[in-house]
Amino acid sequence: MATINDIGVAAAINIVTAFAFLLAFAIFRIQPVNDRVYFPKWYFKGLRSSSIQTGGFGSKFINLDFRSYIRFLNWMPEALKMPEPELVDHAGLDSVVYLRIYLLGLKIFFPIACVAFTTMVPVNWTNKGLDRLRHSNISFSDIDKLSLSNIPNGSPRFWMHLCVAYAITFWTCFILKREYQNIALMRLQFLANDQRRPNQFTVLVRNIPTDPHESICELVEHFFKVNHPDHYLTFQAVHDATKLSELVLTRKQMQNLLDYNINKHMRNLNNRPVIKMGFLGCFGEEVDGIKYYTSAVEGLTREISEEKQRLRTGTKSIVPAAFVSFKSRWGAAVCAQTQQTRNPTEWLTEWAAEPRDIYYDNLALPYVDLKIRRLIVGVAYFFLTFFFMIPIAFVQSLANIEGIEKAFPFLKPLIEVKLLKSIIQGFLPGIALKIFLLFLPRILMQMSKFEGFVSTSSLERRAASRFYMFQFINVFLGSIVTGTAFQQLNSFLNQSANDIPKTIGVSIPMKATFFITYIMVDGWAGVAGEILRLKPLIIYHLKNSFLVRTEKDREEATDPGTIGFNTGEPQIQLYFLLGLVYATVSPILLPFILVFFGLAYVVYRHQVINVYNQKYESAGKFWPDVHRRVVTALIVSQLLLMGLLSTKHASKSTPLLLVLPLLTIGFHIHCKCRYQPAFVTYPLQEAMIKDTLERTREPNLNLKEFLRDAYAHPEFRVGESSDQEMGLEKARSDKSPDLVATKRGSWRNTSLPSKHSYTNSP
Amino acid sequence: MATINDIGVAAAINIVTAFAFLLAFAIFRIQPVNDRVYFPKWYFKGLRSSSIQTGGFGSKFINLDFRSYIRFLNWMPEALKMPEPELVDHAGLDSVVYLRIYLLGLKIFFPIACVAFTTMVPVNWTNKGLDRLRHSNISFSDIDKLSLSNIPNGSPRFWMHLCVAYAITFWTCFILKREYQNIALMRLQFLANDQRRPNQFTVLVRNIPTDPHESICELVEHFFKVNHPDHYLTFQAVHDATKLSELVLTRKQMQNLLDYNINKHMRNLNNRPVIKMGFLGCFGEEVDGIKYYTSAVEGLTREISEEKQRLRTGTKSIVPAAFVSFKSRWGAAVCAQTQQTRNPTEWLTEWAAEPRDIYYDNLALPYVDLKIRRLIVGVAYFFLTFFFMIPIAFVQSLANIEGIEKAFPFLKPLIEVKLLKSIIQGFLPGIALKIFLLFLPRILMQMSKFEGFVSTSSLERRAASRFYMFQFINVFLGSIVTGTAFQQLNSFLNQSANDIPKTIGVSIPMKATFFITYIMVDGWAGVAGEILRLKPLIIYHLKNSFLVRTEKDREEATDPGTIGFNTGEPQIQLYFLLGLVYATVSPILLPFILVFFGLAYVVYRHQVINVYNQKYESAGKFWPDVHRRVVTALIVSQLLLMGLLSTKHASKSTPLLLVLPLLTIGFHIHCKCRYQPAFVTYPLQEAMIKDTLERTREPNLNLKEFLRDAYAHPEFRVGESSDQEMGLEKARSDKSPDLVATKRGSWRNTSLPSKHSYTNSP
Repeated sequence: MATINDIGVAAAINIVTAFAFLLAFAIFRIQPVNDRVYFPKWYFKGLRSSSIQTGGFGSKFINLDFRSYIRFLNWMPEALKMPEPELVDHAGLDSVVYLRIYLLGLKIFFPIACVAFTTMVPVNWTNKGLDRLRHSNISFSDIDKLSLSNIPNGSPRFWMHLCVAYAITFWTCFILKREYQNIALMRLQFLANDQRRPNQFTVLVRNIPTDPHESICELVEHFFKVNHPDHYLTFQAVHDATKLSELVLTRKQMQNLLDYNINKHMRNLNNRPVIKMGFLGCFGEEVDGIKYYTSAVEGLTREISEEKQRLRTGTKSIVPAAFVSFKSRWGAAVCAQTQQTRNPTEWLTEWAAEPRDIYYDNLALPYVDLKIRRLIVGVAYFFLTFFFMIPIAFVQSLANIEGIEKAFPFLKPLIEVKLLKSIIQGFLPGIALKIFLLFLPRILMQMSKFEGFVSTSSLERRAASRFYMFQFINVFLGSIVTGTAFQQLNSFLNQSANDIPKTIGVSIPMKATFFITYIMVDGWAGVAGEILRLKPLIIYHLKNSFLVRTEKDREEATDPGTIGFNTGEPQIQLYFLLGLVYATVSPILLPFILVFFGLAYVVYRHQVINVYNQKYESAGKFWPDVHRRVVTALIVSQLLLMGLLSTKHASKSTPLLLVLPLLTIGFHIHCKCRYQPAFVTYPLQEAMIKDTLERTREPNLNLKEFLRDAYAHPEFRVGESSDQEMGLEKARSDKSPDLVATKRGSWRNTSLPSKHSYTNSP
Repeated sequence: MATINDIGVAAAINIVTAFAFLLAFAIFRIQPVNDRVYFPKWYFKGLRSSSIQTGGFGSKFINLDFRSYIRFLNWMPEALKMPEPELVDHAGLDSVVYLRIYLLGLKIFFPIACVAFTTMVPVNWTNKGLDRLRHSNISFSDIDKLSLSNIPNGSPRFWMHLCVAYAITFWTCFILKREYQNIALMRLQFLANDQRRPNQFTVLVRNIPTDPHESICELVEHFFKVNHPDHYLTFQAVHDATKLSELVLTRKQMQNLLDYNINKHMRNLNNRPVIKMGFLGCFGEEVDGIKYYTSAVEGLTREISEEKQRLRTGTKSIVPAAFVSFKSRWGAAVCAQTQQTRNPTEWLTEWAAEPRDIYYDNLALPYVDLKIRRLIVGVAYFFLTFFFMIPIAFVQSLANIEGIEKAFPFLKPLIEVKLLKSIIQGFLPGIALKIFLLFLPRILMQMSKFEGFVSTSSLERRAASRFYMFQFINVFLGSIVTGTAFQQLNSFLNQSANDIPKTIGVSIPMKATFFITYIMVDGWAGVAGEILRLKPLIIYHLKNSFLVRTEKDREEATDPGTIGFNTGEPQIQLYFLLGLVYATVSPILLPFILVFFGLAYVVYRHQVINVYNQKYESAGKFWPDVHRRVVTALIVSQLLLMGLLSTKHASKSTPLLLVLPLLTIGFHIHCKCRYQPAFVTYPLQEAMIKDTLERTREPNLNLKEFLRDAYAHPEFRVGESSDQEMGLEKARSDKSPDLVATKRGSWRNTSLPSKHSYTNSP
C-alpha cells in the first residue's frame, strides 16, 4: 500500500510531466511553422490560408514576438470562450455532444465529491478499524484511513454509506436524465434546422433479391414505383469499386514516391535519382526514378479512368444494394421505418447515413453473411478479451534473452553487454503488451468492419462498445482481482452468484492508490500529451521535408485527425466507472477524477475548435451508448458496494441496497423508452414540417438534380470533381518537366514557376 | 420410488377414468337435449337451428336410436376428417394454429421416442450401476433401470447420451423452424386472402396530448390531416363507457331475475312470486317479484338510453385515444409502423386489433400510468410466484379442526364426528391449494388487464406467459427440488452459478415416476374430462330450467367457451418441457407424453370443430410465444443434462454439451429475425397488392360508410342494432302481461302465445 508520500511523489511527477507537455504545446503552437499542425481546422474550413506572420524574415518559421510567450496559457480561456451554438456551427453536433460527456462527468462528480468529503471522509477517518490491524502483518497507509476499510465490522456508521449510495444514485440518474433530454432536444433541433442534405431524402436498401428476368436497377425502379408510387423519386446503384479503390491507392503511393524523387532531384540538380527494380529496391537494374514513377502514375491514371468507364457503363459490378431517394422527407421517413415485403431479410430499408459516413465495402453483404460474420466476430472477441494474454505471453517468452540468443546466435556477444541485457529483460515483455494495447482499437475497428456495419459512425460506436468491455474486464476487474481474465472467468463460474460482488468488493478499497496513479498517468499526463500532438507534428514535418511540392500537398500532409470516438469514449467511461465505484468506498479518488474531467474538457474543447476535422456528422447518435454505459457503471458500483458491505457484517443496511440496482434498471428502461427513439427514428411530423417549409420557400426546386450522384462511390465523386483532372493534370505537369529536362538538359527553368509553392520546406 | 407395478396400477386407474369420461361423452353427445352443449358452434354459425331429431316423442330429449350407441367412438375419425383449409374457414386461423401445437409435439417426440427406445434404453438397461446400490438403503425400481441413473459413474456410455442430446437438439430445431416458417406463411396467406375488414384500414392511436384550444376530436382530425394528408380518411373517438357497461350489466342481471320469477310463476300460476327488499333478500318488506323486476329493467333501459345519448352528444367522456382509419391499407400500415412526433410517448400508433378483440377499458391509460402499472404487476407477480404458499398455508392453518372449533364453537359436536373430522383434516388443506390454482389463471388475467393491454388476444398471451413461468417454477422445479419456490430462490442465490443445473439435474431421474403419474392424471384424464364439458353441461341445464324463455335465451345459455389460450398453452408447454428434459434421462416418459399429445389433438380438434366459439381472430399471432417457450425448454433440458452428467463424472463428454445451448440461442435469434416480423408488422408490398386488387374490383367502394361505427364501444354497437330495441320491446312485453294480469286477473291467456318457446324446460 502506498503512503500519502508515495502518492505525493507520483502526483508531483505527473503534474510536472503534464506541465511540461502544456508548456511545450504553448511554445510550439505559436511558431508559424507549426501552424498547420495546431490549427488545421481553420485551414480546412478555408478561414486561414497561410500561417500568421508577425513580420520580419524568419518570423515565417519562428515566432520572434516575445510578448506572446508570456501569455502561453491563454489558449485555455480562449478554448472556453466560444459559445455552444457557435461551436455546433463550427465543429458539428457530434463534437459538441462529445464534449458534453466531460461536462457530464463534472456535473456528476463535483457535487458527489463535496458530499463525500463533508460526510464520509470524517465518518471514515474517525475510526480505528485499521489500527487494530497495526500489529498484524497487513500493511495499510494513511490514505486507507479515509476509506471504508477503516470502519470496524458491523458498525452502525455504514448507514451513512447507504444514504450516500442512495444520494449518488439519485443525483446521477437526475443528471443523466436531464442530459439525455437536452441532447435529444439538441439533436432534434439540429436536424430541424439543418440545411437540405441528400441523406434526408434517401434510404439505404440492402439485400435486394436477384431476379433472372430483371437487372438490379430495373428491379429497384419497379419495386419502389409500385410500392411507394406517390413518393419515389430516383435511386443510385452501388458499384463494387474495390479494384478502383486499389488503383487509386496505388497511384497515390506512386505519386508520393514521384514527389519524393523530384524533391531529391531539386536539392541536388546534378544528380538524377535512380532506383533499383529488384527485391525491395535493393537489387536489380537501375532506372531513372522520376521517369519511372511518372510513367507509373500516368499508366495508373489511364487504368483508373478505364475502370471508371467500365463501372459506369457495365451492370455486372452493381451490387444488390441501392440508395433510393424520395420526393419528400416524409416519403423517406416512411420507407425507412417500414417493412417492405413478406420476407424480412429482403429489401431491408434504413436511413442512409451521410454520403461521407457511408462505408461502401460492406453494402453488398447478404443477410446470411452478416449473421455468420456477427457470430464469428462474437467468438473472436470473446477469445480476444479472455485469452489475449496467451499470444502476448508467447511473444514475451520468445523475447527473452535466451530465446533471442537461440534464434540469432550471431547476436550473442552484443546481447551479453550488461546494459543492453537489462534493457531487453526489463522492457521487451512490457513493450509486447504495450504494442498490443496500442493496436487493440485498430483490431476492434477491423472486427467491426468485418462484422458488416455500413457507416463509419456505426463502426466507431461498435468498436467503442467492445473497447469499453475490454477495458472493464482487463483493466478494471483485471487490476482489482489480479489474474488473467480467463482465470477470473473460471473462478466466477465456480462461485456462487452473490459471492462475485463480495470477492471484487473486498479488494476494491485496497486498489485505490493504484487507480490514483493510473488516473494521473493515463488521465492527466495523457490528456496533456494529446494537446501536444507529437505524432502529427513529427509526421507533418517529415512529409513537409520529403513529399510536399504544392500548397495542396501541404494541406494533405496535415492530418488533423478526429476526436476518435472509438478510443476516447471508452477511456472516459472508465473514469465514470472508477468515480462511481470509489465514491462510496474511497472518496479520495474523486478529486483526481475531477481534475481529469476538467483538464480534458478544456483540452478537447481547444482541439475541437482548432484541430479535429470530423469525418462525418451523426448528430450525436452515440449518446444512448454513453448513457447506457454510465448506467451500467452505476449498477456495477451498487453491486460492488453491496458485496463489500456484506463482508463488513453490515447486515442491516445491505438488503436496502438491493433496491438500488432495481431502481436504476427501471430508470434506464424509462429513459430508453422516452429518449432513445429520438436517436433512431425520424418522426413523420418533423419530416412533414420541413417538407412543407421547403415547398413554400422553393416551389421550383429540382430535387432530382440535387440528389444526382450524391451517393456515388467516393472514388467516383472525387474523380468527377477535381481529383481526376488534378491527377491527369499533375501527371501531365510531372511529365512535361521531365521531357523538357531530357530534351534541353535544363529542368530548373521550366519548373521554377511552381517553386514558390514549396519554399516553406526547410 | 414407484415400481413398474405401481405405475401400472396408476395407468390402469387413469385409463379407466379417461375411458369413463369418453364413454359418458359419447352417450351424452347423442342426446338431443345436450345438443347445444356439445355442438354449440354449429348453432352459432347458424348451420343448425334446433337439435337433430330422430323421430317420435321423447326423442326430442333422449336419443332412442340404439344403433348410434354402438358407434360411440365415431367422433374421433370425424374430428380428424375436416381438412385444414376448411377448418381455417370454419374456426379461424387461431384455432388451427393452436391445434398445430399438439401436432408439433407429436412431430418432435415421435422420432425422439423411437431413437431413445432403440438406442438409449438398451444402453441404460444393460448396466449394473444401480445394482451396486442394492445393498445401500437407497431404493430404486425397475423403471429406474431404464434411466441414465443406471449407468455407473464415468462410463464411456455417456457418449451415447451426448450424441442423442445433439440429435434431439437438431431435430427439435429443424421441426421448430419448419413449423415457424409454415405458420408465418399461413398467417400471411390468411391475411392476404382475408375479406375486407375494418382493422385492415385502422390504426389505434393512444396518448393523444391534451390541448387547451382544441378538443380531442379536432386535434386528431387536424393532426392526421396534416401529417398523413394523402391517406387519412376518418376517425372514431373512444368513449369512456364504464357507467354504460355497468348499467347494461345490471339490466342483464335484473332481466335474469325477472325471467326466473316469470318462469316460477308460469309453473304455478296461482302463486305470484314475492321477494323481500331487505338484506340479501331475506328480510324486509315483501313485494311482487315480477312487478318489481319489470319496473327495474324498464328504469335501467331508460337510463341506458339516456346515458347513450349523453355519451353521443357530449365530448367530456371522450378519452385521449382514437381509432384512425385510412383510405388504403398502405396508409394504415405506414401509420402503424412509424413514429409520429418528437415525443415518443405521445401519438402512439399501432395496428388496431379486430373490433371484437379490443379491450376498451384500457384504451385511455396514459403512458406514465402504463409504466407504473407494469412495475406494480411485475412486483406482484414476483411475490405471487415465490410466496404464493404463504397465504395458502395461512388459510390451511385456519382450516384445521382446532381453528374451526375455536372460530365456531357451536360446530364442535358436528366436527367431532369421526368421519367428518378425517374429511376436514384430509381434504381442507388440499382444497385451499386447489381453489387457488383454479383461480390462478383468472388472477393472472386480471393482472394483465391491470397492466393495460388493449386487446383480449394480448391479454391472453401475457397471462399465458405468466402462467407458464408459474408452472415452470412451482410445478416443474417445485416438484424436482422439493421446497417452496422461495426456498429454492434462496438456495440458488447462495449457490455457484454452475452448481444450479447440478442440483436440479441430480434429482431429475428420481422424479420420473412422479411425472408419469402427473401426465396421466393431468394429461390423459384431464383431456378426456375436457371433452365431457361437465361444467357447461350442468350450467346449461340449470339455466335452461330457470331462466330460459325464448330461443334466443337458450342460445345465450350455451357458453361454448374458447380454446382458452391462457390456460391451455402453458399446459402443453409443460409437456414439451418434460419431454425434452426426460428424453435423454428417462425415455420411459416419452410414450406417456406421446399419448397425451395424440389424445389432446383429437379431442381439441373435435372441440374446435363443434364447440369453441373464438372471441377474436389474431391470425396465429401467438406463435412466436409458443416457439420461444419450446426453445427455452430445449435450453433448460440441455443445461440440466449438463448438470447431471457433470455429477456422473462424464468429464470428457460434458464440455461438448456446452455448445448446444449456444447453438440453440443462435437458432432462436435466427428464427426471430427471420420469421417474427411476419407476426408483428404488415409489409407495405402486401398492403399495396390488396389495395390495388380492391381498387380494381370495386372502384366505387364507399369505405367511409364501411368503417362507420366499426370501432364504436360494444355497448353502443349492440344498442344500435338489436339489443336496445330488444330490451325495450322485452320490457314492454314483460310489462304488458303484468298490466293485463292486474286488469283482468287472467295472465295466462295473454302470455300463452309465447309459450312454445320454452316448452323444452323440464
